[in-house]
Amino acid sequence: MLNNNVIVAQSGGPSPVINNSLRGVIDACRMFPDKFGKLYAGWHGIEGVLKEELLDISAQSEEEIALLRVTPAAGCVGTCRYKLKDDRHQDFTRLLDVFRAHRIGYFFYIGGNDSQHTVWKVSRLADEQGLELTAVGIPKTIDNDVGDSEFTLIDHTPGYASAARYWSHIVQLTNEESMGVCTSDPVIVLQAMGRNAGFITAAARLADPERKMPLQIYMPESHLTLEQLADNVNEQLKQDGRCMVVVNESFDVGDIGAVQDAFGHVEYGACQQSAAQAIVNYLNAKRLKTRGYARGQVMDTDQRHAIIYASTVDLDEAYKVGQKAVDIALNNGAGWMATILRDPGFIYNVRYDKAPLETVALSERPFPEKWIAPSRIDVTDDFLRYARPLIGEDWVSVPMINGIQRFAKFKPLFADKKLTNYELH
Amino acid sequence: MLNNNVIVAQSGGPSPVINNSLRGVIDACRMFPDKFGKLYAGWHGIEGVLKEELLDISAQSEEEIALLRVTPAAGCVGTCRYKLKDDRHQDFTRLLDVFRAHRIGYFFYIGGNDSQHTVWKVSRLADEQGLELTAVGIPKTIDNDVGDSEFTLIDHTPGYASAARYWSHIVQLTNEESMGVCTSDPVIVLQAMGRNAGFITAAARLADPERKMPLQIYMPESHLTLEQLADNVNEQLKQDGRCMVVVNESFDVGDIGAVQDAFGHVEYGACQQSAAQAIVNYLNAKRLKTRGYARGQVMDTDQRHAIIYASTVDLDEAYKVGQKAVDIALNNGAGWMATILRDPGFIYNVRYDKAPLETVALSERPFPEKWIAPSRIDVTDDFLRYARPLIGEDWVSVPMINGIQRFAKFKPLFADKKLTNYELH
Repeated sequence: MLNNNVIVAQSGGPSPVINNSLRGVIDACRMFPDKFGKLYAGWHGIEGVLKEELLDISAQSEEEIALLRVTPAAGCVGTCRYKLKDDRHQDFTRLLDVFRAHRIGYFFYIGGNDSQHTVWKVSRLADEQGLELTAVGIPKTIDNDVGDSEFTLIDHTPGYASAARYWSHIVQLTNEESMGVCTSDPVIVLQAMGRNAGFITAAARLADPERKMPLQIYMPESHLTLEQLADNVNEQLKQDGRCMVVVNESFDVGDIGAVQDAFGHVEYGACQQSAAQAIVNYLNAKRLKTRGYARGQVMDTDQRHAIIYASTVDLDEAYKVGQKAVDIALNNGAGWMATILRDPGFIYNVRYDKAPLETVALSERPFPEKWIAPSRIDVTDDFLRYARPLIGEDWVSVPMINGIQRFAKFKPLFADKKLTNYELH
Repeated sequence: MLNNNVIVAQSGGPSPVINNSLRGVIDACRMFPDKFGKLYAGWHGIEGVLKEELLDISAQSEEEIALLRVTPAAGCVGTCRYKLKDDRHQDFTRLLDVFRAHRIGYFFYIGGNDSQHTVWKVSRLADEQGLELTAVGIPKTIDNDVGDSEFTLIDHTPGYASAARYWSHIVQLTNEESMGVCTSDPVIVLQAMGRNAGFITAAARLADPERKMPLQIYMPESHLTLEQLADNVNEQLKQDGRCMVVVNESFDVGDIGAVQDAFGHVEYGACQQSAAQAIVNYLNAKRLKTRGYARGQVMDTDQRHAIIYASTVDLDEAYKVGQKAVDIALNNGAGWMATILRDPGFIYNVRYDKAPLETVALSERPFPEKWIAPSRIDVTDDFLRYARPLIGEDWVSVPMINGIQRFAKFKPLFADKKLTNYELH
């Protein structure tokens, strides 16, 4: 009997468009009923695969699958931060047991570099053990930090464009607020996500490409200090009477009582202190050279699930890169991550291609130095030319029912368990 | 020569719809060119009137005035937190000097109870000094804390409906996030505005009227402690494996390094510690009875300027209550605040009426005890019946130009100064 069933799963922090990669995989698999059997989703990513919790996607309705287009985050099939450590042979053995028990021939994993690393290891192990498994990675991270600094592995990761669009809007809105309240609250500090990578923070500039706003951008790659920030803010206040600061969550403000996830990455939303709050306290204690206060704002996960701010370009690309993974599985086999590459020239156009998992898994892309403006608190126009096409032109159309958003909801139908229970480490 | 010029001004924290009250005043005044002369806006509220900074609204284009519909916050004409103290005779004398110098016969002031108090005092003083001035208040506050507890002075304040709609959406989005990430981040704490008043916090329930989500609501009127909160959260985790906490900014978490505005009100966005962060730290230190972390989010001013989440009902009502103020000025004279009253019966319908300024100015409405559910962490269905019609059905249509929102922008054209400079206290 053929091993042609499919598992698709998600990992890491979600994005507004992650469900579109899921939908791309589902729709593409359904186009080839002779190639693919039953379609399952790992319930909470690799954790669900280990626990043999396989959501039956084949049993879900067409309408709910279509609604994945406008359903943000990972509520439908779940995600996780579980790390398959190299020394956890048991985890890998268990994975292959589950694949065998459910006749899984295809494994699609949607995630960042950590997840691509997982796909790569699973793929090698299956190969070593003679299990016929085609494992393909699908990129996802709002941080845009996957890939090489020449952008030849991937131009941008699905999710980034929507986070960028989010910030272009938030800064515009905050500017209206700031213009209004500046006589009492002259400084507003906004904290943006992006673990050690400034791409999201940089996108704040999309709100104001002509640089008319008193906006300062603090990316981790700029390596500025709290003291420099305070000096810059006071300088701006002298000129404009108000200042907006968009600061990356990993901006160095000293001890933040950091906590880490399973991969050893700091989880900024769970730490004892935020960069924004530390900056507000520092500025208010230093007595801003003006009357009034600095106030702060930590949007945290909102920027990775506010679907109304999603980029329609991003929604489309996330879908197609999911489809591409299926295309790779059919025509190229294992060892690849589906990717998005940009055509040369000034007309924005992308093509869907493949990148070697091994290379991608080890990549980490900081915000390029060449895109940081000489002031260190702004970006260059080259960055704007890179980012502007990503955010698109239009609002996404999010259906409303009875005054609230209509999101996809899957029925809790799972594959019958065939193995004994498994305890996660 | 007739004193028929008009000053309109805004005060306090803005809302997504405050500009619609401004637009209502402008459009209504323009309908009666025989009654009203030049139309000015106080630049940053009463501060601008004192400093004789009067933005010439008559000189602005029709298109920019129309765009006030979809322009949130107070960037166009500014707002302030300046308090005309009773012992500052100088301020009041100056105000009347400015009114006289610019032949102002009508003064419209958009704001919360503090602002209504200002209108009332200005009105009385003008009367005492024989200055013919018709001063009318226009309600505005997302907190919904203006009025009496029987809702006979005002049913709801313009701005509240949009903040309520914001939270109905944010909680839905956070639920998608929470379902996705609950194996690593089982608790998400969201901080809502509403100084000492739980109306905004309560609106979180609009996301889930059927009570399917593991959602807990902490209003200041519930008087719960950090310890009770932690117990409730652990209980929810036992049942659902995850928990969403929406907490009011004034929830008592101990010392927050509070700072105050000119009216003696705590400015939560500028304090050294937020309720959300204090709760996250308490929960993480107490070691939640589950794996993973609590994480927190402080949306702060976003909830009062995210125009895409604005309620279309609110936009319309804010406009009409602005128009009503002009109607009152023409037909009833000074001493009133324009107000919104709800018709009896189950069909949502409002009428625009007037309330005595003196009564409104001294009012402060907490969230009614009868609308707090027995659990103290939920609201009753009666509250939902009150709030549901306010959030409307549809998305507002916000124009986009070149990938960003198109907001109204007034030209900086001011009335010629006729008096000497005036220093604010």
